[in-house]
Amino acid sequence: MNIDTLINARWVIPVDPANSNKGNNILEHHSLAIDDGEILAILPTEEAQNKYSAFDEYHLGSHAVMPGFINCHTHAAMTLFRGLADDLPLMEWLNEYIWPAEQQWIGPEFVNDGSRHAITEMIRGGTTCFSDMYFFPDQVAEVAVETGIRAVIGLILIDFPTAWAKDADEYLVKGEQIHDKYRHNSLVHTAFAPHAPYTVSDGSLQRINTLAEELDIPIHMHIHETVDEINQSEEQHGKRSLKRLHDLGLLSPRLIAVHMTQLTEEEIALISTQGVHIVHCPESNLKLASGFCPVSELLQQDINVALGTDSAASNNDLDMLGEMRTAALLAKGITGNSSVLPAHQALEMATINGAKALGIDHITGSLTKGKAADVIAIDLDTIESQPLYDPVSHLVYAANRNQITDVWVAGKQLLKNRTLTTINENIVLSRSRDWQEKINAGKINN
Amino acid sequence: MNIDTLINARWVIPVDPANSNKGNNILEHHSLAIDDGEILAILPTEEAQNKYSAFDEYHLGSHAVMPGFINCHTHAAMTLFRGLADDLPLMEWLNEYIWPAEQQWIGPEFVNDGSRHAITEMIRGGTTCFSDMYFFPDQVAEVAVETGIRAVIGLILIDFPTAWAKDADEYLVKGEQIHDKYRHNSLVHTAFAPHAPYTVSDGSLQRINTLAEELDIPIHMHIHETVDEINQSEEQHGKRSLKRLHDLGLLSPRLIAVHMTQLTEEEIALISTQGVHIVHCPESNLKLASGFCPVSELLQQDINVALGTDSAASNNDLDMLGEMRTAALLAKGITGNSSVLPAHQALEMATINGAKALGIDHITGSLTKGKAADVIAIDLDTIESQPLYDPVSHLVYAANRNQITDVWVAGKQLLKNRTLTTINENIVLSRSRDWQEKINAGKINN
Repeated sequence: MNIDTLINARWVIPVDPANSNKGNNILEHHSLAIDDGEILAILPTEEAQNKYSAFDEYHLGSHAVMPGFINCHTHAAMTLFRGLADDLPLMEWLNEYIWPAEQQWIGPEFVNDGSRHAITEMIRGGTTCFSDMYFFPDQVAEVAVETGIRAVIGLILIDFPTAWAKDADEYLVKGEQIHDKYRHNSLVHTAFAPHAPYTVSDGSLQRINTLAEELDIPIHMHIHETVDEINQSEEQHGKRSLKRLHDLGLLSPRLIAVHMTQLTEEEIALISTQGVHIVHCPESNLKLASGFCPVSELLQQDINVALGTDSAASNNDLDMLGEMRTAALLAKGITGNSSVLPAHQALEMATINGAKALGIDHITGSLTKGKAADVIAIDLDTIESQPLYDPVSHLVYAANRNQITDVWVAGKQLLKNRTLTTINENIVLSRSRDWQEKINAGKINN
Repeated sequence: MNIDTLINARWVIPVDPANSNKGNNILEHHSLAIDDGEILAILPTEEAQNKYSAFDEYHLGSHAVMPGFINCHTHAAMTLFRGLADDLPLMEWLNEYIWPAEQQWIGPEFVNDGSRHAITEMIRGGTTCFSDMYFFPDQVAEVAVETGIRAVIGLILIDFPTAWAKDADEYLVKGEQIHDKYRHNSLVHTAFAPHAPYTVSDGSLQRINTLAEELDIPIHMHIHETVDEINQSEEQHGKRSLKRLHDLGLLSPRLIAVHMTQLTEEEIALISTQGVHIVHCPESNLKLASGFCPVSELLQQDINVALGTDSAASNNDLDMLGEMRTAALLAKGITGNSSVLPAHQALEMATINGAKALGIDHITGSLTKGKAADVIAIDLDTIESQPLYDPVSHLVYAANRNQITDVWVAGKQLLKNRTLTTINENIVLSRSRDWQEKINAGKINN
């Protein structure tokens, strides 16, 4: 049988929820058959060799092949602010560095260049899908299409005017236009992205809730990021943010709640009942000292927890392999229990759980027959990941993103033996250097 | 003037304590002149070009050049157990996996091969000096000499017989022999390494204390790693480990206390008064859920805190760049203060503070005229570390160890544009694969 692509691998790690009862479910010497952008079959390599004749065939004899990472919370364009300011209290960081820089520079060109830099970093690091929240989401979508990565474009709303929109009406209209433009695109998905409880009014939230149901798309929002947010909500609304969102009818499987570092037992029970998805951003939460998301308790309550890096301005990278490791280590540290969040569970958080949170687990998130071929290969035959007793252990606790050799999205190869196929890295670097000079000069002038 | 080596760099980051009042002390377009294994001068590249004629000259136009990392706590040979078992409670991990494997396999050949693998990983990751604690330290020393890395060889003592020694007397005699053999070697240093308070008797500790003073070498020991250790000490000795060591006269600037996750305010004051050095191993402490070393409080009391990875069996890598990042992030998270342990301080912990702890800061740990040329270069012109506003920010929060291109120890180049000069990587990998097969077979037979 003639097919597009056959990937023969030392290990195939499907992260398929249907097989989760089989433990880690690591297949040795198996092959992934891909045709028309979809996964056709996973079968022993010997069998595959007899059955298929592929236009492109790969022999990855020391690699693990697995679903691509799904980064559930980014502000991609902020990559241009990477390392602009660190080691500061959150409000000083925002007030004195990030917000002035945003006010000065944000526009279509900034978002276009910054998102392309972020996507370049993400593809090189094995991320095949990201869920973004930023101004000029139309630009993020354009760059996603151009580069071939899968994206959930956040239709942002914030209750103050920006270069992108002047008021709630304009944010919503522009957001719906983007949704309409890409509704038939198989790689560009959309989600409403009201910024946070402290920046979006009840009225706007109710409108978004209605529209999200109509369009059947998720709502992506920062919630319970810091103690200050809770205190402010209690002052202004007489209740904690989560209670307020619940009263407004927002708690449902449509809601993607990012951060959630402040949670009572009752709130965890409520999240579980309402089927809310959580996105854990451990490195950003650590760096900004926001608090700890109680991941282990959430998972015990069968709440779906996915992973995000947050922006490169507060991380300072978009490395899902590293984020997965930090999540696995941190959960053990804060619970005092070294057996919580084991490696295979961390791997689920970085892949299939992300797809579930974004409402696209019928399309991606695992290597399952019929799903899109969003696939990555990691070479484990390096000094840093040998000897090898369990490839999943090394993926989580030892490997680094430079070992990711190949990346496919919907069957199209975006990274080929460490070389990007849809992006000119030198142009990206050159544009970013130009922005750096401008931003630095702006900093000095202020 | 003719010299051996001239390194012209985009940035030189000396981490020189004499210049610490100058803030980060980042020199742009500077050169490092090296002769006879020592740092001769650091000066502007333009000046250096006129002044020196070098046998080897390097133009590192997008690199930061800095002192090599000092990994203050390793069990190098345990790299052969990397990923053998994870996600387990400490005692189950030790009793059911690590100790049986050690009992079955430890011997000169295991330690020789395992240490060479570890050193290969460390050099590739920019570590120029490590302080080891393991059985057959004679083998660790031999491999250090063969590979050219700087090492502090731990003269281990533990109150039970092993393949290395049958009792305290034999441990001490064999340790002293190693000390004597290398006393005139400029790269191999020694330290006594009594394993831990719960495995070494009062008598042995007193003998070590006297010998360490005579030989003028440090004492490297696991102390206050877990709550269990403290509880056991209170039961057996009627006091906490640190108090017991104090009563035995061990608390002094000669003591390198590793882990220290359990500390009262009084104990921190005592450590400060006695000038004890602390080695923080954040990733191992997280992975084994041992507790949190209060790094920020220790630094506030002017206690010297250095960094270690611990073994690759509980980390699971020997990556000091990653360890530095985890330390900087974790300190913020556990204090709830995003301004503690800023990037430049994390860099000091990974370099000069390590040299101080090991008692070799007159020789290494910073780029200072007259010190050994233990130097590394990191290429910062990658997608993952651009744009760039502050190279120290990227070293700590964004760079990964694959960006380390060149490593010199005492002026000798051990890594040249990512290629090892003293080690055959393929032989290392092949030997480790052999061990993996044997260890796996042993696991199944048990």
